[in-house]
Amino acid sequence: MIRVTIWNENVHDREDDRVKALYPEGLHGAIRDLLKSDDELVITTTTLDAPEHGMPDELLNNTDVLIWWGHVAHEQLPWEIADKVADRVHRGMGFIGLHSAHLSRPFTRLMGTSCSLRWLDDTREHVWCTDPTHPIAKGIPAVFTLEKEEMYGEFFDIPKPDSVVFTGWFSTGNVFRTGCTFSRGHGKVFYFQPGHETNPTFKNEIVGQILRNAVRWAAPQKEIFDEIDCPWETEYIEKKYQK
Amino acid sequence: MIRVTIWNENVHDREDDRVKALYPEGLHGAIRDLLKSDDELVITTTTLDAPEHGMPDELLNNTDVLIWWGHVAHEQLPWEIADKVADRVHRGMGFIGLHSAHLSRPFTRLMGTSCSLRWLDDTREHVWCTDPTHPIAKGIPAVFTLEKEEMYGEFFDIPKPDSVVFTGWFSTGNVFRTGCTFSRGHGKVFYFQPGHETNPTFKNEIVGQILRNAVRWAAPQKEIFDEIDCPWETEYIEKKYQK
Amino acid sequence: MIRVTIWNENVHDREDDRVKALYPEGLHGAIRDLLKSDDELVITTTTLDAPEHGMPDELLNNTDVLIWWGHVAHEQLPWEIADKVADRVHRGMGFIGLHSAHLSRPFTRLMGTSCSLRWLDDTREHVWCTDPTHPIAKGIPAVFTLEKEEMYGEFFDIPKPDSVVFTGWFSTGNVFRTGCTFSRGHGKVFYFQPGHETNPTFKNEIVGQILRNAVRWAAPQKEIFDEIDCPWETEYIEKKYQK
Amino acid sequence: MIRVTIWNENVHDREDDRVKALYPEGLHGAIRDLLKSDDELVITTTTLDAPEHGMPDELLNNTDVLIWWGHVAHEQLPWEIADKVADRVHRGMGFIGLHSAHLSRPFTRLMGTSCSLRWLDDTREHVWCTDPTHPIAKGIPAVFTLEKEEMYGEFFDIPKPDSVVFTGWFSTGNVFRTGCTFSRGHGKVFYFQPGHETNPTFKNEIVGQILRNAVRWAAPQKEIFDEIDCPWETEYIEKKYQK
Repeated sequence: MIRVTIWNENVHDREDDRVKALYPEGLHGAIRDLLKSDDELVITTTTLDAPEHGMPDELLNNTDVLIWWGHVAHEQLPWEIADKVADRVHRGMGFIGLHSAHLSRPFTRLMGTSCSLRWLDDTREHVWCTDPTHPIAKGIPAVFTLEKEEMYGEFFDIPKPDSVVFTGWFSTGNVFRTGCTFSRGHGKVFYFQPGHETNPTFKNEIVGQILRNAVRWAAPQKEIFDEIDCPWETEYIEKKYQK
Repeated sequence: MIRVTIWNENVHDREDDRVKALYPEGLHGAIRDLLKSDDELVITTTTLDAPEHGMPDELLNNTDVLIWWGHVAHEQLPWEIADKVADRVHRGMGFIGLHSAHLSRPFTRLMGTSCSLRWLDDTREHVWCTDPTHPIAKGIPAVFTLEKEEMYGEFFDIPKPDSVVFTGWFSTGNVFRTGCTFSRGHGKVFYFQPGHETNPTFKNEIVGQILRNAVRWAAPQKEIFDEIDCPWETEYIEKKYQK
Repeated sequence: MIRVTIWNENVHDREDDRVKALYPEGLHGAIRDLLKSDDELVITTTTLDAPEHGMPDELLNNTDVLIWWGHVAHEQLPWEIADKVADRVHRGMGFIGLHSAHLSRPFTRLMGTSCSLRWLDDTREHVWCTDPTHPIAKGIPAVFTLEKEEMYGEFFDIPKPDSVVFTGWFSTGNVFRTGCTFSRGHGKVFYFQPGHETNPTFKNEIVGQILRNAVRWAAPQKEIFDEIDCPWETEYIEKKYQK
Repeated sequence: MIRVTIWNENVHDREDDRVKALYPEGLHGAIRDLLKSDDELVITTTTLDAPEHGMPDELLNNTDVLIWWGHVAHEQLPWEIADKVADRVHRGMGFIGLHSAHLSRPFTRLMGTSCSLRWLDDTREHVWCTDPTHPIAKGIPAVFTLEKEEMYGEFFDIPKPDSVVFTGWFSTGNVFRTGCTFSRGHGKVFYFQPGHETNPTFKNEIVGQILRNAVRWAAPQKEIFDEIDCPWETEYIEKKYQK
């Protein structure tokens, strides 16, 4: 069993008629629907307008993999919560940042960079697999097309990823490291660029397969530790062997 | 010409007789002396007890490579200054963190991890070169020994380095990624583990060569940008080629 | 089901009394025993002195993960077979090289480097986990000790690994990238340093867990392709979208 | 002083009128002209039709950085010479593979993969910088355009590069890791995708700057070793410290 929490900013979802028509249950609802074919996942959704910005300790402390979608209200999340999320990643929780979550506070905290990029709306994107051995690429074709997606272009100011699983081609002439993995402490992080709120990306079955793969990959492989400091032993080898 | 600023916490240097005897001009003075054989470097030293915590905007904005040593007073540096340092790294400044600077605020901001590790004092360290092609390894032997150095041991909670230039062996039975490089935005970061305040590490000529190499390597290769966002052009290729 | 083939040089196993006493069914038998608690694995063993050097096409073409142990007879394997093994890795087969297989022909072919290193017999090794998020580290402690193992020391001339899952400390003063992963084409490669023929390493249950993890990790996640060239489609996206 | 040797297959250059018109002194002559503004370089050109396939020991043993262009006659170079080139790279020589040299024997030996890719002629390419901190990117704009270049597309079967300095966008809908670095032993390798024989790529000044940067970066930073095995000392630390 993997406990997945989907956090959605839920601003466009309530205010923009195009988004309401496309995703009547919100982006979080659409993402949940993409995941539910995996019986091992126990899925909770939450939003910025819920109590404690949708991220009370009780929920965070019972999350194995946290999926994050945000866009226009990043600064409404207190840094204190972003720091709590980052700390839980260091101790083993998986984190999946979607689309404009590149500028969300939890993600930038985990990266240590500005996470800035170029952008332009309404382009065609081809998503190429550039690391076919990665578990997130399992069952995904060598290339697939999103006929309408927001362009995100290089230079994308992120640390060098552990793997660039997908690279995006945009009709505007841009390229992008569209699917990237990182390890942070005992936790795994996946960033995935597609998912603008006015596009049907979260109804795309290939995207669904990528997200299901990513959740499985990001799930903690050991317990989530109480503390990051030397969490595996209380007896140090140093005492036994020191001369 | 490369403008190097050495920031030192300067607490042990004033309070601990052993450190005063070993480094009468402070750790910053000793590090400065290791660098001064490189005529291209214009070196400034500064300390936590100087005005504006030793890091006024005027100084930071005229620094190409910032060297940081801190240990017991990390929390006396306001996060606001750590954020300014990180922002300047993103825009091109080099950053070299020494020894217990692994827990300094600028360094942890740039890493996005807890930067925790194991430690124990007074051990022997062999420093092995594990990336001989790296510019920081230029002229450095395959291995050299520090007869007395503080052990820092794995697991070291840092993001996967771009290069592990040096790996440390300790007589306590520990290993450590002792010299690591990272890129963050347009800036380069080097972390180097040796340099405990009661050891003569900053009188070691091989350490000096490593630091001189690191300063040269970390120096910005373009100007330092005013903003990180798309700093290279005002005309986007997207406008010219978009259909 | 994962079809695992264990290839063993089988020279010491027949000629050295210490090895015969320690591993009466050969190193391949001991490695097989370490794997057999995983019910999903269908295990075959083969040796250099079998027909076609133990690697007939029929066997290779029905192998999902190939484990390789060799030491003193590397040059008795024709390069033609090494090339066939490498080609099957490119098309998706997993490959696990053990101990002195670092100089085996299939492994050096896959690396493209000399794979040279330092060495000395009869030392103590502590094996530290330096990538706890990696699937091969699942269930493995932060450190474990092999009281008697052959020292392999840096500089180890391999390409930069995708992950250094384990780093070894040796009582001789050496360090080593003891467990390393690489991707080659559609295949995954793991190199693991312990396993000298006169040591009881292949009776160690932690080593067993590492090998079982490695087999699972290295198993092909898609089919093994007939050809490496553009194996996923016959219809190119280029024809559809080209202007 | 850096001794650069440019090896060119020189088949199209003699047989194809378009190439003769574009590059009257051969591709090697054009590449030489791009390098000659760097006074530190001592440049030699050589071709497959010269004695000993253009790569006699005397020349190879006096080369610091070897640039390689080949396309239709890869198999005319004996593997023995490819192995000698790879061995010299392991001992410190730089190697720069251009365009269709991705399938050249020295390059595939150094990679250990099939180096296969997709391709189609006559497209537009935008070359984006995706590692602005890399020395090869020094002075290069964030993006530049080659109006006519042969498309090379992912999946490109190479080991994970140390740095993807440039990523290519093609009007056919493809992306490519267009400029990649690797370390192999004590030597550095750069692969650069542009440079089809019928395109004026080797008259492009930005390409010239990239190649000059690459030569400087790939030059050996220590001497070129006689042997790769433990080349730095004759006295082992193991003897001094072993208990």
